[in-house]
Amino acid sequence: MMKKTALLLPFVLMMFAFQPVKKKKVIFFGDSITQQGAAPGGYITRIDSMSKLEKLADQFEFVGKGIGGNKVYDLFLRFQPDVLDQQPDIVFVYVGINDVWHKAMGTGTDFDKFGKFYDAIIATLKKRGIQPVVCTPSVIGERNDFTNQQDGDLNLYAQWIREYAAQNSVPLVDLRKLFLDYLKTNNPENKEKDILTRDRVHLNEKGNQLVADAMWKVLKTLK
Amino acid sequence: MMKKTALLLPFVLMMFAFQPVKKKKVIFFGDSITQQGAAPGGYITRIDSMSKLEKLADQFEFVGKGIGGNKVYDLFLRFQPDVLDQQPDIVFVYVGINDVWHKAMGTGTDFDKFGKFYDAIIATLKKRGIQPVVCTPSVIGERNDFTNQQDGDLNLYAQWIREYAAQNSVPLVDLRKLFLDYLKTNNPENKEKDILTRDRVHLNEKGNQLVADAMWKVLKTLK
Amino acid sequence: MMKKTALLLPFVLMMFAFQPVKKKKVIFFGDSITQQGAAPGGYITRIDSMSKLEKLADQFEFVGKGIGGNKVYDLFLRFQPDVLDQQPDIVFVYVGINDVWHKAMGTGTDFDKFGKFYDAIIATLKKRGIQPVVCTPSVIGERNDFTNQQDGDLNLYAQWIREYAAQNSVPLVDLRKLFLDYLKTNNPENKEKDILTRDRVHLNEKGNQLVADAMWKVLKTLK
Amino acid sequence: MMKKTALLLPFVLMMFAFQPVKKKKVIFFGDSITQQGAAPGGYITRIDSMSKLEKLADQFEFVGKGIGGNKVYDLFLRFQPDVLDQQPDIVFVYVGINDVWHKAMGTGTDFDKFGKFYDAIIATLKKRGIQPVVCTPSVIGERNDFTNQQDGDLNLYAQWIREYAAQNSVPLVDLRKLFLDYLKTNNPENKEKDILTRDRVHLNEKGNQLVADAMWKVLKTLK
Repeated sequence: MMKKTALLLPFVLMMFAFQPVKKKKVIFFGDSITQQGAAPGGYITRIDSMSKLEKLADQFEFVGKGIGGNKVYDLFLRFQPDVLDQQPDIVFVYVGINDVWHKAMGTGTDFDKFGKFYDAIIATLKKRGIQPVVCTPSVIGERNDFTNQQDGDLNLYAQWIREYAAQNSVPLVDLRKLFLDYLKTNNPENKEKDILTRDRVHLNEKGNQLVADAMWKVLKTLK
Repeated sequence: MMKKTALLLPFVLMMFAFQPVKKKKVIFFGDSITQQGAAPGGYITRIDSMSKLEKLADQFEFVGKGIGGNKVYDLFLRFQPDVLDQQPDIVFVYVGINDVWHKAMGTGTDFDKFGKFYDAIIATLKKRGIQPVVCTPSVIGERNDFTNQQDGDLNLYAQWIREYAAQNSVPLVDLRKLFLDYLKTNNPENKEKDILTRDRVHLNEKGNQLVADAMWKVLKTLK
Repeated sequence: MMKKTALLLPFVLMMFAFQPVKKKKVIFFGDSITQQGAAPGGYITRIDSMSKLEKLADQFEFVGKGIGGNKVYDLFLRFQPDVLDQQPDIVFVYVGINDVWHKAMGTGTDFDKFGKFYDAIIATLKKRGIQPVVCTPSVIGERNDFTNQQDGDLNLYAQWIREYAAQNSVPLVDLRKLFLDYLKTNNPENKEKDILTRDRVHLNEKGNQLVADAMWKVLKTLK
Repeated sequence: MMKKTALLLPFVLMMFAFQPVKKKKVIFFGDSITQQGAAPGGYITRIDSMSKLEKLADQFEFVGKGIGGNKVYDLFLRFQPDVLDQQPDIVFVYVGINDVWHKAMGTGTDFDKFGKFYDAIIATLKKRGIQPVVCTPSVIGERNDFTNQQDGDLNLYAQWIREYAAQNSVPLVDLRKLFLDYLKTNNPENKEKDILTRDRVHLNEKGNQLVADAMWKVLKTLK
């Protein structure tokens, strides 16, 4: 018996060596920022490039599921087909900007309801054994002294996400904090845009790279 | 053999006579108007009374599932536990007022998204073999010359529901048309409230009875 | 004596014949519709052309004082320099669309305050012996079945102006009624725009002519 | 000569001593906070008491001109009768909260228009030789980490007033800064209200005293 095993062992090892690693499917679930994140130069594309550079390309498969104008309840509406049916291993949820912003046009999301839909998404992911990663909403306007119209509300929704993440042991990418810290030192003229965004909201190259770096850093801890 | 059957027959018939009829479970799915509809004097309570009066109490079971402040996406969020898991036979969907009204407070529902969530609910009911009945949103303000602030928007959302019902062969209770017709002849002073509502939105006795009558009429055609 | 008079009479008559008539200065006070009204093809330009065609050019001087985005309180802010200091004889006040429309962006005008500012303008004109002419706000969207979002509110503000005009004996150009009547018969496809407007609000050629006709008709009664 | 003077001097001094000092009329021009400021316990009443305590009662006459719900353009509408016609010496302008707050109900004031009306008031006061004192809007919500919904917008409008005051050499009472500083150290639980306000906006005893102290301090420099 032992001999037989001895003969088999190298073959078995060889098998493993050649067997393709099961890639982790990572879905980025969000709004127009995520939609653009999948384009060339976008943050998802950048994460993909970084994974290749670091020889980790065989470990991840990246899928962008961002749709412009989406609020948290829009994510919930397409949660089954766009996320659950795709059988991902990890899901980044990056939402909240439109929930706050669209209040100015009459169709934002009430604070309490934001939390309910958010929890419905994260709790379902966890129940299905899918790893969620939550992100705070970045910015609507880049002024660094809290004089952007929606700063108060964005801070409130971001703070809720932070507390939710802590209470539910969900990994957090605190984009809002990252952006505010970056703008504190890199926006001396206190400009509204053109530091990390093109138009106060949507990311320019630097913005996409900042998001990519932060997400990639968390992603590698989840391997 | 024949004798035996002859003897059994009366017994079998008797069995059927005493066997309880499987009641149809009717869920009323909506907002505060429906929540109040389940209270004494409310439209659901009135439908229940009418069914008893007409000796049809054994055919229906009525369940109110209304929650104050709900918009169409709030219905969608609790659709599974509050409706699908209850295994209803018939579901009245009476929603839209908050979707329009809350625009004035920054958190209404965009027209196109209203349709998407609405369809997600109705299409799922149909797929599960549950009979949907759709209702147009009644009123926000009772003036009868289209000078209530939200009249334009309510008309738009109501018209969408009418067309959706027609295109998808879903029974329709056109509450908005009923209310407007009633107010045309019964609101000579063009008052804002106190004809069919207490407060421009929530139904008084007459309003509840008008809704009850209209729904009950449709319900009996679905037996 | 008689002879002398007889000799003088023709001269005196001649004097009157050649003495230039004091033109009435007509100011059009309003928002972007009025601002565009002063451009070629605009309603003010059309009124000017009509006055020439009807040999009444020597009787009127037309001045456009429209500024884009103006609400009733913006008119009040520039009332002194733009109207009173110009010493007009007649002032058309055509405002209300932005007061209603901008509610959707958070900065419309409360109904009661609309009335207060409106009255402050009209009452001051009257006190100064200047003839005001008030106009109801035309349309935001051209659908003819009251399914344009702001129809209810526009109807309300228009109705207030009608009643104000009647109570204060101010000539009224009921543009909203004119537009609605026109659209009832000339918008069979129930389109949102392109009947009297280019973009749901701003007037195309037909719209400008309709306004010009209505104002010119009233203006001639004020000679 | 000397004797004569010596005899006259006491009499002259006596004359001055008995001649009534011309009191400076101080108008507080604002919204509901100022309306309540004139009530017992309100900030105007407190300033009045402080002036008596400091034996300066004969130097000032205090007049409250606050009306609930007022925005900057409402002040402008009643500027002539409520301020100019009263011939004040000093006018405190304390406005901006409703301009920001009411955006949430559709009828706030655009940022650029806020500035135009504000300047129209202050510039007119200066032209008439009346001393304006401007105040930044205090708070809508007392949380001290910029998570109150309107914090961004309030900061923006307050910052505009600060810069306007500096550029136009107008004395400033920076209430917002005062409130934020106070809340930083005196609101450890990060409560929404009940530190300086009763309801997130309207001042409680401490709030009224804080405003009274700050205004009184500036007022004494204007003697």
